[in-house]
Amino acid sequence: MGRNSDAKQRIIDSAAELFHSRSYANVGVQEICEKANVKKGSFYHFFPSKRDLTLAVIDHIWLYYNREGPVAKAFGKDVPPLKRIERFFLGSCEFQAQLQKEKGKVCGCHFGNLASEISSQDEVIRKKLDEIFSAQADVIENTLVEAVAVGDLREIDTKAAANAILAFMQGIILMAKTRNDARLMRKMAKAGIDMIYQSG
Amino acid sequence: MGRNSDAKQRIIDSAAELFHSRSYANVGVQEICEKANVKKGSFYHFFPSKRDLTLAVIDHIWLYYNREGPVAKAFGKDVPPLKRIERFFLGSCEFQAQLQKEKGKVCGCHFGNLASEISSQDEVIRKKLDEIFSAQADVIENTLVEAVAVGDLREIDTKAAANAILAFMQGIILMAKTRNDARLMRKMAKAGIDMIYQSG
Repeated sequence: MGRNSDAKQRIIDSAAELFHSRSYANVGVQEICEKANVKKGSFYHFFPSKRDLTLAVIDHIWLYYNREGPVAKAFGKDVPPLKRIERFFLGSCEFQAQLQKEKGKVCGCHFGNLASEISSQDEVIRKKLDEIFSAQADVIENTLVEAVAVGDLREIDTKAAANAILAFMQGIILMAKTRNDARLMRKMAKAGIDMIYQSG
Repeated sequence: MGRNSDAKQRIIDSAAELFHSRSYANVGVQEICEKANVKKGSFYHFFPSKRDLTLAVIDHIWLYYNREGPVAKAFGKDVPPLKRIERFFLGSCEFQAQLQKEKGKVCGCHFGNLASEISSQDEVIRKKLDEIFSAQADVIENTLVEAVAVGDLREIDTKAAANAILAFMQGIILMAKTRNDARLMRKMAKAGIDMIYQSG
């Protein structure tokens, strides 16, 4: 059982890494099995299809983001609400810069990449990613609501603003990926944060 | 020659449509040839590789965007500069809504999709898309400079702000694609425009 669980996690980790470095369509089951060092039979024992694997990859990354990734670190209540949103941006910039160092290129957001590539092709994966983005937007919205409550932000449509902030984050990551320069994110994030603060 | 030029354009149009509806990797040369009604030999006569075709597709769409698409319509000097940026957002929302009507799903931005999928895999295409985004950002930056000059916007880092606005646009298109609802764009665009105006 131990070995089996290991194999399953190795498949998930390998797929997450390969999808992120290249793309969903560009990575086949064969290559994932080779990287994970498992046989194809094992793969299909755990995951009837590449789609099933992808859903597991998304869950796994979301858990990571919330336990130790940029989301977890940003939204701790040790600083005022708007500072947390600033920290979310700066933490994500750092996260992308670190990944660029490790991989030699900017690979973008795991979720954003999959959403862009697959949303128009697979309804099940699209809905899953939509749920993830909604959960992210909820965290941001709660933070904005708190900012309004303590008087750090004027009364705004916090739901629309939260979605806009998340969209902005996805956009700057995509721009950094296209420029292949994670440092670009920090400049754009700064411009975006200034706009949010000025609107407060 | 007439027939040949037609064939070349049909290949470009077919590839643009197929890439946009699905993805780059998911569409093969064979399918593009079938849709364009040309033989494979013809294809390779015009385009030595799928990459060469993709560069031509990007040029073609960029020309369309600037001649009659949302960019052309937005940046006419008949309204004050910040109004043009608002028109850029609202025009793009309408453009995506129209495409959703025609295709039955939100397919996102031609450039954003390709940038997200291919930037980490093909340096030539990445650089081409980076040039397109830079050209778009230049148009926005010139508009912001004009807004500062006429006193509609305080002195800001117009280059960073232009990149941030473009990133925001890409982000809201991606969110709309993931939600499969182009109407979502309008709400987010409104929230973003409010932030820009408030910072003015």
